[in-house]
Amino acid sequence: MAVNLTEPTQVHAIEGVRLATASAGIRYLDRDDLVLIEIAQEAKVAAVFTQNKFRAAPVSLSVDHLNKITPRYLIINAGNANAGTGQIGMNAALDTTKAVAESFKVTPEQVLPFSTGVIGEVLDASKITNQLSCLKENLSCDNWLLAAKAIMTTDTVSKAYSKKINIAGKDIQVTGIAKGSGMIQPNMATMLSYIATDLDISNQMLQELLSQATEQSFNSITVDSDTSTNDACVLIATGKSGVIFDEINKEDKNQFQRALYWVMQMLAQAIVRDGEGATKFVTVCIEKASNQQQAKSVAYSVANSPLVKTAFSASDPNWGRIMAAAGKCNDYDLQLSQASLSINNVPVMERGELATSYTERLGKQAMQSEEIEIIVQLNLGQAQHTVWTTDLTHEYVSINADYRS
Amino acid sequence: MAVNLTEPTQVHAIEGVRLATASAGIRYLDRDDLVLIEIAQEAKVAAVFTQNKFRAAPVSLSVDHLNKITPRYLIINAGNANAGTGQIGMNAALDTTKAVAESFKVTPEQVLPFSTGVIGEVLDASKITNQLSCLKENLSCDNWLLAAKAIMTTDTVSKAYSKKINIAGKDIQVTGIAKGSGMIQPNMATMLSYIATDLDISNQMLQELLSQATEQSFNSITVDSDTSTNDACVLIATGKSGVIFDEINKEDKNQFQRALYWVMQMLAQAIVRDGEGATKFVTVCIEKASNQQQAKSVAYSVANSPLVKTAFSASDPNWGRIMAAAGKCNDYDLQLSQASLSINNVPVMERGELATSYTERLGKQAMQSEEIEIIVQLNLGQAQHTVWTTDLTHEYVSINADYRS
Repeated sequence: MAVNLTEPTQVHAIEGVRLATASAGIRYLDRDDLVLIEIAQEAKVAAVFTQNKFRAAPVSLSVDHLNKITPRYLIINAGNANAGTGQIGMNAALDTTKAVAESFKVTPEQVLPFSTGVIGEVLDASKITNQLSCLKENLSCDNWLLAAKAIMTTDTVSKAYSKKINIAGKDIQVTGIAKGSGMIQPNMATMLSYIATDLDISNQMLQELLSQATEQSFNSITVDSDTSTNDACVLIATGKSGVIFDEINKEDKNQFQRALYWVMQMLAQAIVRDGEGATKFVTVCIEKASNQQQAKSVAYSVANSPLVKTAFSASDPNWGRIMAAAGKCNDYDLQLSQASLSINNVPVMERGELATSYTERLGKQAMQSEEIEIIVQLNLGQAQHTVWTTDLTHEYVSINADYRS
Repeated sequence: MAVNLTEPTQVHAIEGVRLATASAGIRYLDRDDLVLIEIAQEAKVAAVFTQNKFRAAPVSLSVDHLNKITPRYLIINAGNANAGTGQIGMNAALDTTKAVAESFKVTPEQVLPFSTGVIGEVLDASKITNQLSCLKENLSCDNWLLAAKAIMTTDTVSKAYSKKINIAGKDIQVTGIAKGSGMIQPNMATMLSYIATDLDISNQMLQELLSQATEQSFNSITVDSDTSTNDACVLIATGKSGVIFDEINKEDKNQFQRALYWVMQMLAQAIVRDGEGATKFVTVCIEKASNQQQAKSVAYSVANSPLVKTAFSASDPNWGRIMAAAGKCNDYDLQLSQASLSINNVPVMERGELATSYTERLGKQAMQSEEIEIIVQLNLGQAQHTVWTTDLTHEYVSINADYRS
C-alpha cells in the first residue's frame, strides 16, 4: 500500500558505527526483531524523545542515561513497546541494559534501550539478553539495511537514506534509518530513527542541528494525529572523516546541514508514504501566515482532519472540508476571508472567492493523483510551514480494528 | 447504525413558537429540507455560533442581525451549507432574509438564516423563497418533529427532546431539536439546534444559561474532531407560561436549569449516538485532574484518537492506546505515572501499575458493550470533565469517501 516508496538497496557505511540484528521472537517469529548499534568511543551522540506524558520505560531510562554519559550501545526491539506496565517494564529495560553492559564491558549508563510495538504487554527481557552473543558476532558497519528491516512493526517497506557530500576534499557521509507507520504525529521526535555521520562535531552543535532538522522533518508529519509513547531519534557523529565542523566555512556547514535535512526529511516522508492504509501522499503547505506557529497549527489542522483525509482517499475535490479544517484552528489571529487555495496547482479559491477558472472536473483531475499538494495562502503575513500526511482509508480501519498492532 | 437511539415520537409544544416545513429540493428531492420557525413578538432569543474562522455566510449574517434586534423568524435549509462561496453566498443569505421579511411584514434584521450541508456549492436562494407561501400556510406549534426531520443531512435518526417541569403550580416546557452526525466537534455550539421554553426570562440570563449548558452538552461531544462552518444553537424563551425566572426561588431556578441541561445533553448525545458509522457510544470521564481545562483537553485527546476509536470498533481492550492518547495531550502539568484507568468498571491501571485483577478476558468483555465508559483518574487534583464520542468504523470511511456529504 505504500505510496511511491520502494525498498532501499544501498546506503553508505559510517566508520565508527557497527550494527547487528537477531531474531528474539518477541512478537514476529519469522524475522529479525532486535538491533544492536555499537558507537565508537570518541563519537558524539544527540537525541530527541517523545513528548508524550505516558512515556515508555525505555524512553525514561534512555533520557536518564544520556544525561549522564555518551552512549556506546543502542539496543532496540520491535513488537513490544515496553510501555504502560509500570515497575515491571522499568525492570525489563534495566535488565536489558545491564546485560548489554556486562557483555561489552561498559557501564549500564552507556547503553540506551529502545522498544516499539504493542503498548501494555509485559516485555520478557530474557528474549533479548539471550541474543547478545549472537548480536556480538554479527556486528558490522554494513548492516544498516538489515537494521532498517528489523525495527519495522506495521511498516510495509523499510526506510533508509544516505547522502555523501565533499567538504575540503574529504567525503562526509550521513546515513539514517527509521520505522513508523501508525501512531504517527511525532512531537519532538519520530517513532524510531537512527542517523549517523562521520563528521567531527561538538555535542552541543550536534544537538542543535538535530533539533532544527527534527522540526522540519519528523515534527512535520502525521498519519493519524497520535503521538507515540516510544518516539526517539538518535544522531551519531563519529568524527572518523577527520573533518571538524567548527573549522569548516559557512558554505560547507550549510552543505552538511542540507545533507542532514535531506536524510531526515526523506525518512520522515517515507514514514508517511508507508502510513497505515495510505493510498495518497499529501503535502500541506500553509503560506503567508502571520507567524510560524499559526502556519504549523493550520497545516496540522488540515492534515489531521478525518473529513479531509477521507475526501483524499476518494479523490473527491470536496475542498470545503479543507477550508473548514483550516478554520477550526484555534489561532486568535486567524481569518480566512482573504485566503486562497490551490490543489496540485489548480486554483480553487482566490482571496475568499471561488476561482473563476475552477470547475469540478479540474478539481477531480487534480485529486486523482497519488501525490497531492495543497497550498493555502492565508495572506496575513510571510510565515510558512509544510506538513506531510496521508489519506484515511478502509485499510487504516482494518489495520487498527481487525487485529492488534 | 445509530447506537441505542430511536425516532422521537412526541414532544411538548411551546406556546409562542410555530414551525413549518417544506420541500425545496435543494439536495434531497424526496423529503422536506426547509424549516421556518416563527417566534412570538415578546420572546427573548439567545444563540451561540461556531468558532470556526471559515464561517458560512448565514452564520455571519445571523450574528450581525442578532446584535441589532430580537429575531422573529428563523429560516433553515438542509443540503447546502452556503459556505465558502464568498459574496455569492452572502447574497443568497441576504435575498432569503429579505424575502422572508417581506412575506411576514418584519424587517430583514428580524430574520436569521441557517444552512447545513455541503460546503463550497452555490445555494440557489429562489428554491427557498419559492416555498415561503407554502411555509406560511403550514405554521403550527405542533410541527417540532417534522422540523427535526427536515433539518437532517447525514443523520439517520431525527433528534428531539422535551421536558416538562412544574414551578409554582404552573407547567414549564423545554423542547429542542438538533441535527448532526459528521463534522462534529462543536466549538461554542453544535451543528444546528433549536430549543424553546415558555419561561419568562431576561435576554442576558437566557444567554448565560445557554452558554453554560452548551459547555456541558454540545461543547463536550465529538464524532470526528472536525468543527463545522455552520454550527449554531438557538434558545428561545417565549414567556407564555407567565412564570418569571427572576421571581422564582433558587430551587426552582435550579430545576429549570437541570431541565435545560437535560434537553441539551440528550440532543448532544443523540448526535454522537447517530455519529457517522457509529457502532459504540463512548463516555470518556477524566477525573481528579489538576484543573478543568486539563480534564477537558485530556478527554478530547482520548475521544478523538483514531487509534482509540478503531480499537473501540473492534471491541479490542487495547488500553495502551487510551493512555498514549491521554499522554499526548500538551498540558504542561500533566503526568500519568500515578494515573488509574477503568473500562466499564473493570480496573485496568491503578496508580501507574497494571491492576492485579485485570485480565485480557475481562477487558474484552467490557469492550463488547455498545455503551462504553472510560474513566481515567489523573490523581492530580479535583477537576473533572466528560466527553461523549463514537468509535471509528469502515462505515465512517464509506460515508465520507464513497460519496460527497
